[in-house]
Amino acid sequence: MIVAIHKNVLAGNEATAQANRELFRRHGVKVLNLLGSPGAGKTSFLEATLSELAAQYRVGVIEGDLSTALDAERIAGLGVPVVQINTQGGCHLDSRMIAAVLPRFDLASLDLLVIENVGNLVCPAAFDLGEDLKVVVLSVAEGGDKPAKYPRTFLEAEAVIINKIDLLPFTDVDLPVVTAELLKVNPRLAVFPVSCREKRGFEPWHRWLEERLFGRRGEV
Amino acid sequence: MIVAIHKNVLAGNEATAQANRELFRRHGVKVLNLLGSPGAGKTSFLEATLSELAAQYRVGVIEGDLSTALDAERIAGLGVPVVQINTQGGCHLDSRMIAAVLPRFDLASLDLLVIENVGNLVCPAAFDLGEDLKVVVLSVAEGGDKPAKYPRTFLEAEAVIINKIDLLPFTDVDLPVVTAELLKVNPRLAVFPVSCREKRGFEPWHRWLEERLFGRRGEV
Repeated sequence: MIVAIHKNVLAGNEATAQANRELFRRHGVKVLNLLGSPGAGKTSFLEATLSELAAQYRVGVIEGDLSTALDAERIAGLGVPVVQINTQGGCHLDSRMIAAVLPRFDLASLDLLVIENVGNLVCPAAFDLGEDLKVVVLSVAEGGDKPAKYPRTFLEAEAVIINKIDLLPFTDVDLPVVTAELLKVNPRLAVFPVSCREKRGFEPWHRWLEERLFGRRGEV
Repeated sequence: MIVAIHKNVLAGNEATAQANRELFRRHGVKVLNLLGSPGAGKTSFLEATLSELAAQYRVGVIEGDLSTALDAERIAGLGVPVVQINTQGGCHLDSRMIAAVLPRFDLASLDLLVIENVGNLVCPAAFDLGEDLKVVVLSVAEGGDKPAKYPRTFLEAEAVIINKIDLLPFTDVDLPVVTAELLKVNPRLAVFPVSCREKRGFEPWHRWLEERLFGRRGEV
């Protein structure tokens, strides 16, 4: 019974996701869905990414949380248009929540929309929002066994950010081992170790994202 | 529509949870439901707790994960009876999953059953398993804003373990601030800062749990 219900909910979600996708395509907006556990550092990672990208591209942000507007307030501090969605206890964003807030953006004036999902390594992966790609933020403090234990999220993603590498000396986590575990689950993943705290490791990620979404700049 | 579906699922869950609770009561088994984000350190915390409690009490463990038996293998290493539930992508344990594995335990020979839920700070809080109490493990590496952002889980719990305090010097998290944030969400919470890595802080937690579940030992 639960499976049948789940299928209905997902089918309803998919129709609106396709409508969102068509709307984004028509306005030439690329969309990134950012996933990760609570406290993986999604907002810090987004702040570091925006501080670089917002100089070159017109970026908007949707923040998803159960409660509070804490993350939206952080992003607004960067001067980027941002809308907070509170799911009121819901464990993921769905395509209808996104559709409901899109009128609050001037899509024609955006190059990139980043959607930071609810902190949850399980449920958000099942709900297409109409995005171009999913990226997962994984903190080294979460331990190295997460790819094997939460495979669906890593299967849906194109890239994984291994965040908080400044904590590596103080954990039992080994970066090559986590990377190998990630690639065992999904061999197509691009993997970027970074430290938001020490602002390290962002150049390869920015280059990759730019190429993935906009094609290589500076080439004919 | 989604809300109605959710209510049906929860009503079905509640009936089985009550049956589980009655079964536990009849056999004199106390039951702890352990919640927390992926990588908060639930299994490490359980290992540290069991290494103390298993000498005095007969303990069994149910491990919940989407995939793998990694956690059950760790617990089995302590010589404790353990059953792994794989939810096959499901984001929480429910009371029927628990009922289905209870025949694999000799309940009459147990004092305490610990259920380690799926790593998820949202969904498990809504599903009563028939437990006596919920305890949340929160890692300092997750940041200090989690109580405000995920209030339901902290409202359902009686105690919160603030884990990985050995990482405090390397994060922006302040222990008194996190504790105050927790108590702002739920003033009745018992809060225990620990380090599983350095085996620090467990005595107050063990005393509290023993008193909460079994009444104070050594008293008439």
